[in-house]
Amino acid sequence: MDMPSPDQTVLAKKAHIVARLRAVLPLDAVIEDEIETRAYECDALTAYRCPPLAAVLPSSTAEVAAVLKICHEENVPVVPRGAGTSLAGGALPTADSVILGVARMNDVLETDYENRLVRVQTGRTNLSVSGAVEENDFFYAPDPSSQLACAIAGNIAMNSGGAHCLKYGVTTNNLLGVTMVMMDGEIVEIGGGHLDAGGLDLLGVICGSEGQLGVVTEATLRILRKPEGARPVLIGFDDNQVAGTCVSDIIKAGILPVAIEFMDRPCIRATEAFAGAGYPDCEALLIIEVEGSEQEIEVQLDRIVAIARRHNPVEIRESGSAEESAKIWLGRKSAFGAMGQINDYMCLDGTIPVSQLPYVLRRISEMSKEYGLDVGNVFHAGDGNMHPLILFDANKPGDLELCEDFGADILRLCVEVGGCLTGEHGVGIEKRDLMLDQYAPEDLEIQMAVKDVFDPKWLLNPAKVFPLAASHARRSVSH
Amino acid sequence: MDMPSPDQTVLAKKAHIVARLRAVLPLDAVIEDEIETRAYECDALTAYRCPPLAAVLPSSTAEVAAVLKICHEENVPVVPRGAGTSLAGGALPTADSVILGVARMNDVLETDYENRLVRVQTGRTNLSVSGAVEENDFFYAPDPSSQLACAIAGNIAMNSGGAHCLKYGVTTNNLLGVTMVMMDGEIVEIGGGHLDAGGLDLLGVICGSEGQLGVVTEATLRILRKPEGARPVLIGFDDNQVAGTCVSDIIKAGILPVAIEFMDRPCIRATEAFAGAGYPDCEALLIIEVEGSEQEIEVQLDRIVAIARRHNPVEIRESGSAEESAKIWLGRKSAFGAMGQINDYMCLDGTIPVSQLPYVLRRISEMSKEYGLDVGNVFHAGDGNMHPLILFDANKPGDLELCEDFGADILRLCVEVGGCLTGEHGVGIEKRDLMLDQYAPEDLEIQMAVKDVFDPKWLLNPAKVFPLAASHARRSVSH
Repeated sequence: MDMPSPDQTVLAKKAHIVARLRAVLPLDAVIEDEIETRAYECDALTAYRCPPLAAVLPSSTAEVAAVLKICHEENVPVVPRGAGTSLAGGALPTADSVILGVARMNDVLETDYENRLVRVQTGRTNLSVSGAVEENDFFYAPDPSSQLACAIAGNIAMNSGGAHCLKYGVTTNNLLGVTMVMMDGEIVEIGGGHLDAGGLDLLGVICGSEGQLGVVTEATLRILRKPEGARPVLIGFDDNQVAGTCVSDIIKAGILPVAIEFMDRPCIRATEAFAGAGYPDCEALLIIEVEGSEQEIEVQLDRIVAIARRHNPVEIRESGSAEESAKIWLGRKSAFGAMGQINDYMCLDGTIPVSQLPYVLRRISEMSKEYGLDVGNVFHAGDGNMHPLILFDANKPGDLELCEDFGADILRLCVEVGGCLTGEHGVGIEKRDLMLDQYAPEDLEIQMAVKDVFDPKWLLNPAKVFPLAASHARRSVSH
Repeated sequence: MDMPSPDQTVLAKKAHIVARLRAVLPLDAVIEDEIETRAYECDALTAYRCPPLAAVLPSSTAEVAAVLKICHEENVPVVPRGAGTSLAGGALPTADSVILGVARMNDVLETDYENRLVRVQTGRTNLSVSGAVEENDFFYAPDPSSQLACAIAGNIAMNSGGAHCLKYGVTTNNLLGVTMVMMDGEIVEIGGGHLDAGGLDLLGVICGSEGQLGVVTEATLRILRKPEGARPVLIGFDDNQVAGTCVSDIIKAGILPVAIEFMDRPCIRATEAFAGAGYPDCEALLIIEVEGSEQEIEVQLDRIVAIARRHNPVEIRESGSAEESAKIWLGRKSAFGAMGQINDYMCLDGTIPVSQLPYVLRRISEMSKEYGLDVGNVFHAGDGNMHPLILFDANKPGDLELCEDFGADILRLCVEVGGCLTGEHGVGIEKRDLMLDQYAPEDLEIQMAVKDVFDPKWLLNPAKVFPLAASHARRSVSH
């Protein structure tokens, strides 16, 4: 008998895995056809694509456990996937991996107003969590720009934030407990509807772990009562750094608006052309929203406007109605789409101490000249979560690579001023090698040793988060 | 030459360790005299005592690192100690261990209002963190009853809360970063003055880890602007369970007071006799505090009072002045001391979902009759953190043991209704074996494997947190 060719070996292996998966899942929950698996070949970082071996769409924690048990036995890597809106390649497949999509797991399992929590399957979209409790005037606070599409699973994996997180915190501050399936198929419950944990609190390390530790299938989330009212004010400046200084002065004064959003001229112009939000044409714009009772709103806005006036704003415009408020936010929420209409861009995600805003904005502008690539800035200024958009021309040879180098330099700058490589998009594949700029080898070693505990074979979401060489080495040792 | 007796071996070993410690610390920072080490023989769980081999009082992170490196090389266990106010034996020495006290490390390293943070050495007391920023009208939110004495190191170790944590969260919600020394002397920086972390976020698992993972020497803490005003209201009921139902109705309505404190008749009477706070003589008392502008305070209190009236309160008394407010809080803050004046008591610390308050109060009262031991309840009702005080007579043979059994049953009840063994006192030695009631062996295995990563020899704070048999087994394997 002839030796099978390598291709035949791969096909035989695939057929074997798929047969085992079909034995534990409904017919339509296992996708192996090459055309259909293309739907899973990338996430929102579309520059990188790779179809997986297969994709599965389980409907329950028990099905997820069955899938993982099989993949663990067969040494097949698994890439968990929420809604695929990740911007850093966190859900990018490898050719030998099974994509585990949680999209069919979108039930509300429990709404509990007495304990101010809701329990959902993690395939549920962010916005529909609030939807499930809004009739009682409650909401779920973290609000990523992609909230209409993104899944709670991905929010937990990336520790997602959003415009209103300055006051309410990011996912980790609103997550009370999870049901998680480990790579060997074991189901664990961590946290829950009560304060604190006995022994080591593992919930914090699971939140933001980008699918490295397990597949989170159910989540208990804190819900909050909707505020009585809310009102944004637009403040325009003729200088980026002055706008940055104004933000840090507001924080320093101890005022805590719900949101402080920042946009610079390239973003303002693109947004105006796209959404017609009526933004003034200036160098930098702050959108600051406060909430509470009418009187409380007025007191806070008065203090904010008083601080802003010391920085010679070119425009101060308080929203006068619900329509005006909606229009102001529509502009901000359209900014990424608007930029995409006129340019190819790469969206970065770094965090810095708020006091460093003016310096970092100046350095980005200098680096923009050095690299010869324009940058638009639109981000959550209040908590120092920056999203510089580097504009490039995908059809110009070498432009993408130049853009990637520039991006890496901006993220190194964030680390240099005491910040971090990522706010809410995760490390993914995009920033795995930059982790060496953030962490000493000993620090990374601790993180990887914690991964060893949960996933000793290093099968979960391979080649992400940790420097590629380090995670390859780890994987080889474990096999 | 004769073989040395066991005592001589211990003494020689002690002399050797002490000599090495003296080589890296100032003269007065190493305590070996038996009389002096008695000061460290227990924490606030005084029923358990054991003098350590020696105690050290380093003044810097570098000195802590030097101490740990020596103890690691010599296989000497180390028990970290904040101010020794722990109520669950978290800082209890073993006879072969060195106590590492952080009391001399109490500097403010940085106050940074632009980034709303303060960086301190962890020996600093909780209240003096607020003290360092109060001239600018900021404060540090977590406020344990022991805040005058307890150290930030212990707050981090136990993830401490306090009366005002319903609104502001507990330590983990207000901790941004730490400098931590690992058992082998390596110094790591985790988190900092920026949002989020790249890769695995280890800060959450360090907070509340009861000194199992490392010695935290410096902490970056979130500070908040003081509210414009605050006002408590006292509401009395003639039934415990009705008071519990009132609490869960307030939470369900989406109102978020700063504090909802609960006291029952035994505590009210003891407190009145002790502090003369003018509390009404009734079955159960809620102290509910709201804050904000004058109008905001009124709106919130009106809603709370309306809910309370539906439960037929026997008294509703809004504070009319700063003096009255101080008196109301003085009573609550004196409750533990007051109970101590009239009884021996054991103070428990369990958390439950708030909706379970009425049921759990009823069960505790039934169990009180079964055991023949009285119970006083004074606790943070808003976030379900219960502190039942079981009264016993230390001079009556068998009463302490009966009390411990009763306590264990109450904590099992907390777990049974979906809660947790500990809110803010930690597991310590008190509840280590009850961990088996909270966690499945596989879940504990994960926690212990995480400890392996940070402290492979199991030298840090031995015999705490994990079931004694399991942690002994772990330690034997590692040596």
